[in-house]
Amino acid sequence: MSLLTELNRTDPARIGQALHRFASQLFPICRSITGAGIRQTLALIGDRIPLQISEVPTGTSVFDWTVPKEWNIRDAYIKGPDGKRVVDFQQSNLHVLNYSIPARGTMPLSELKAHLFTIPENPDWIPYRTSYYKEAWGFCLSHNQMLALEDSDYEVCIDSSLEDGHLTYAECYLRGHSTDEVLISCHACHPSLANDNLSGLTVAAFLAQFLGGRDLRYSYRFLFIPGTIGAITWLARNRETAGRIRHGLVLTCIGDNGRFHYKKSRRGNAEIDRAAANVLRHCGEPAEILEFSPFGYDERQYCSPGFNLSVGCLMRSVWGSFPEYHTSADDLDFIRPRQLAASLRVCVGVLDVLEDNRRYRNLSPYGEPQLGRRNLYRSPGRDGNGIEITARLWVLNLSDGEHSLLDIAERSGVPYAAIRDAAQLLCENGMLAIVPDDAALKTLPERP
Amino acid sequence: MSLLTELNRTDPARIGQALHRFASQLFPICRSITGAGIRQTLALIGDRIPLQISEVPTGTSVFDWTVPKEWNIRDAYIKGPDGKRVVDFQQSNLHVLNYSIPARGTMPLSELKAHLFTIPENPDWIPYRTSYYKEAWGFCLSHNQMLALEDSDYEVCIDSSLEDGHLTYAECYLRGHSTDEVLISCHACHPSLANDNLSGLTVAAFLAQFLGGRDLRYSYRFLFIPGTIGAITWLARNRETAGRIRHGLVLTCIGDNGRFHYKKSRRGNAEIDRAAANVLRHCGEPAEILEFSPFGYDERQYCSPGFNLSVGCLMRSVWGSFPEYHTSADDLDFIRPRQLAASLRVCVGVLDVLEDNRRYRNLSPYGEPQLGRRNLYRSPGRDGNGIEITARLWVLNLSDGEHSLLDIAERSGVPYAAIRDAAQLLCENGMLAIVPDDAALKTLPERP
Amino acid sequence: MSLLTELNRTDPARIGQALHRFASQLFPICRSITGAGIRQTLALIGDRIPLQISEVPTGTSVFDWTVPKEWNIRDAYIKGPDGKRVVDFQQSNLHVLNYSIPARGTMPLSELKAHLFTIPENPDWIPYRTSYYKEAWGFCLSHNQMLALEDSDYEVCIDSSLEDGHLTYAECYLRGHSTDEVLISCHACHPSLANDNLSGLTVAAFLAQFLGGRDLRYSYRFLFIPGTIGAITWLARNRETAGRIRHGLVLTCIGDNGRFHYKKSRRGNAEIDRAAANVLRHCGEPAEILEFSPFGYDERQYCSPGFNLSVGCLMRSVWGSFPEYHTSADDLDFIRPRQLAASLRVCVGVLDVLEDNRRYRNLSPYGEPQLGRRNLYRSPGRDGNGIEITARLWVLNLSDGEHSLLDIAERSGVPYAAIRDAAQLLCENGMLAIVPDDAALKTLPERP
Repeated sequence: MSLLTELNRTDPARIGQALHRFASQLFPICRSITGAGIRQTLALIGDRIPLQISEVPTGTSVFDWTVPKEWNIRDAYIKGPDGKRVVDFQQSNLHVLNYSIPARGTMPLSELKAHLFTIPENPDWIPYRTSYYKEAWGFCLSHNQMLALEDSDYEVCIDSSLEDGHLTYAECYLRGHSTDEVLISCHACHPSLANDNLSGLTVAAFLAQFLGGRDLRYSYRFLFIPGTIGAITWLARNRETAGRIRHGLVLTCIGDNGRFHYKKSRRGNAEIDRAAANVLRHCGEPAEILEFSPFGYDERQYCSPGFNLSVGCLMRSVWGSFPEYHTSADDLDFIRPRQLAASLRVCVGVLDVLEDNRRYRNLSPYGEPQLGRRNLYRSPGRDGNGIEITARLWVLNLSDGEHSLLDIAERSGVPYAAIRDAAQLLCENGMLAIVPDDAALKTLPERP
Repeated sequence: MSLLTELNRTDPARIGQALHRFASQLFPICRSITGAGIRQTLALIGDRIPLQISEVPTGTSVFDWTVPKEWNIRDAYIKGPDGKRVVDFQQSNLHVLNYSIPARGTMPLSELKAHLFTIPENPDWIPYRTSYYKEAWGFCLSHNQMLALEDSDYEVCIDSSLEDGHLTYAECYLRGHSTDEVLISCHACHPSLANDNLSGLTVAAFLAQFLGGRDLRYSYRFLFIPGTIGAITWLARNRETAGRIRHGLVLTCIGDNGRFHYKKSRRGNAEIDRAAANVLRHCGEPAEILEFSPFGYDERQYCSPGFNLSVGCLMRSVWGSFPEYHTSADDLDFIRPRQLAASLRVCVGVLDVLEDNRRYRNLSPYGEPQLGRRNLYRSPGRDGNGIEITARLWVLNLSDGEHSLLDIAERSGVPYAAIRDAAQLLCENGMLAIVPDDAALKTLPERP
Repeated sequence: MSLLTELNRTDPARIGQALHRFASQLFPICRSITGAGIRQTLALIGDRIPLQISEVPTGTSVFDWTVPKEWNIRDAYIKGPDGKRVVDFQQSNLHVLNYSIPARGTMPLSELKAHLFTIPENPDWIPYRTSYYKEAWGFCLSHNQMLALEDSDYEVCIDSSLEDGHLTYAECYLRGHSTDEVLISCHACHPSLANDNLSGLTVAAFLAQFLGGRDLRYSYRFLFIPGTIGAITWLARNRETAGRIRHGLVLTCIGDNGRFHYKKSRRGNAEIDRAAANVLRHCGEPAEILEFSPFGYDERQYCSPGFNLSVGCLMRSVWGSFPEYHTSADDLDFIRPRQLAASLRVCVGVLDVLEDNRRYRNLSPYGEPQLGRRNLYRSPGRDGNGIEITARLWVLNLSDGEHSLLDIAERSGVPYAAIRDAAQLLCENGMLAIVPDDAALKTLPERP
């Protein structure tokens, strides 16, 4: 049975609510690229799926980079002349410039302003800003908040620490028949931002949970990592494993109600690129395919020229293109149960292609085989020739040992799932034989 | 002289009338995939061109199929309470479900209705229905005819036989310089239907007649066969011959006044595909090129993966897309002399390409040769540079031994015929030499 | 420093005026494919750049052609009954049919008319007509001039000579690091026509002047030749040199205010074709890319199948497509200083691509290198990521030793110049290394 068929046994509304509920649980945590926030996040994910946590010491060389100091924060505020907090980390962890060094003192507004960040165009939203690699401190607040500040002295406090420690990431490895791997990667370093972080995290966690225990062709590796430095760190410590990655997806911004976007891998016509394009074409929602570019998420790292992995990026609204991006408006209302569930469904559809995109050989390749005498020439409960017959004839015609099911789906315009079902039915009827793919995939020598 | 030039010596109106007259002669015969109807049809074609008839016994295994019993019919009717024929095979052979087993009896209308077929959307037309591989009997009639039937008992009679016999098909083989063959195939199994059967049969017969006795590069094989089972039977009995087919056309539905459609072979860019596209682009009528699909006529069989022959299908209106398809409205008025003649002309144009699509070598390849001193730089009777000069310069520029005339026609946008004429003129002037194609084509060792 | 950066140091308005001034100096000369006119023209060009003049005797065989007799003219006129010149070569050298044999005599208008050429559609313009290879004499005049001629006897005089002599052409060779050459070719055989001749000549002369003395990757060869016969003559005498031409441009009709047109080489995707397309896409003016055809200027000869050189043709308005073409309206007003300067700028931009279109290797190919710590991740004086950062990331991502800078420019959509600047900056920062191209280019063994 296909993965998608199994997923479809559960009501998508229930899946969507569960995804949103998990996102809500993760939302308040103040994540960063290191520190307690990401550890706490990974612990909650680890309650759902088996995770292997890695702690990489500050100062470790990872390719051209160095693992930075670990950042932790307890409190931060700006107090007005009346001693009241006018900006308060306890209200929103976005209020502090992420990775702010400790700061304490009193200063006039004119001096404080150099440390304040706002979005004049959206005066009610708090921006999300970071300063990972340049030591600095600051506060983010809504533009209206800042305008309301009187010309006075303010007490500032950032009760943070930036010290030698560790960079933390987690992996979930699901063993399949082959040692060749499918990578699912998402960043876990953004604080209270829902679409740009939690949508990817929650869908990836549910996907791993859904795949767990199933009989899989590929092995699957889920990475929950801090963006950029996390991907670079993982790659630097796992060069051999990276060589086994056959296909991969970066998941991010997949909870809002924008249309789907799939950004192709650097290769541009990798199997994952074609699988994603095919699934999206038939997913019932509008979707757009984007060419690769060296901007965006961690596909930048996986697609760096030394690795050039077949890793694409699935999004709904594209980072930087929607006003809520990197602001307090990217909150739990901005992501929707229905969209989260549909994104999970697309992911499963893509994996479905990877799992059984094989080549077959028509065992009656001379002329058409006589479908009629096998009761395969009329669709059940239909008058004319439906998509089932169409799919069967395409599979028979193109199954010459050269065309994969995805090739057939692309050439025929028939959804992959119908092509795969036709191939399975024809196999069961002894009309089609699978072409062994031992050469293509490395099989695990023994299975536990 | 090119084939097309020779064809153009005859008034197309006369050709069209002759084609239509021959279609009219064949129209009344009750054809099926076996039996007297197809034999009689082939006999009439055999009056025009040399035919070799094959009779293949019932029960013969042909790939995944078996040659069915032979069907013959003498009479069929439904008689009303007053003893009058309300449905009468003598009026139209479409009235009987093709391949009906013998049936006799009297039954109430309610019981009879399970055996009646109509077209409610076109209530005056009789549908054409068959039941080759499932034993059944039935009548086809206009919907209005059926509505007029009173609730009463009816006498039915189908005076048919379905017994061991033969499947009949015919070949016309015209020997050329090479043993490599061009296949022209059309089905001859439909009863009184004009476009979907007779248009192809008549054009193919006239084409064979036209080619007869000419000096040809290729050998030509015309097949007049029952659809599907006939093509499969021929292929099963002629696997070696099939290996010699270099190009092929299925001809069908080429008499109506719809635009031309050429459906490409499974290969998609075979020489026949490119030749047909080029001829149609310049034929003066609108035309559409369709991608291959495993639906349609006997190209399904020739393009099955075990053969994968370079066989396309030339049509005007596409089967199933016009309301008259497989109804009594596909009659002799539905096909037109002018369209039949123009279709023949397109066929000859395509064969013209195949016959002399060769590669040449410019004998003055360094710089342009001086056309002026050979009186080749001005078109006869023209002021400026006409298509003749254009064609000459293109032929000279691209005749590097790599580009065929069809390549040059495609790249230049100049009609193939003008390119071919230019090549011939340049050869006559000693400026161009043909590249021997011995390697490409197998030549007959001796010629009778 | 790039060639374009150097060119940009001079005010384009000044360049444009200088180009137009030089065109004005050349305009009055009565050029033809041989004779004093082209010699005088080459002498004036030789005042600006080092030229090697070749004189090829009449009767020399050059491939399929023969060098014709040399033509010279001193005077020509038609005198009316009153002895006044009604058509006068001294007024415009277009008045004489170029290559007219000597003629003297008196004849009635009716007889004279067979020797008169006009343009009825543009009755005030004098046409430009030639008769190089068929001995003839004639006059070109405005249609209104002809209509004003009374029915009377006229005295005609063409004081020309057509005798054994020479065909003259000139070369300017600029030695670079490699013996591989870039060819810049323009015809110098048209009399007082500004766009179709002088625009190409002047831009080519200035280009050679600009390149002179610079440190160049390629050697450059500028040809100033009579059209067709000149290119054929040069090719016939320089077959070995022709083999060293890696890239080439024919320059013509680049002074009018029409949009740019680049006609591709016969190869269609040669580096020169891609370079020209890329430069034109970003040149700030509308531009069109045309497929190769065997019509036009001397690219016809360079792209003949025996040579098949990578030579394209840069134009603004396309020959034959503007009414002023080959008429007296193609005068000094028809070409504009601004357009001439912009055309020179495009040429320099194209050469810039050829000069440094190399492949590089990212020295930190695993993951992205950390641009931030090198101060390369923020554009100078900008808030967000500008084109500089975009270019750097693209160069790093695609510099795998396979992609050239032009490949990167094409894939990224970033102008070539920005890509090249990024590559240079990254080299200076030790992040990129050039891939040696010894294999690709032949280097001069010793440099004088």
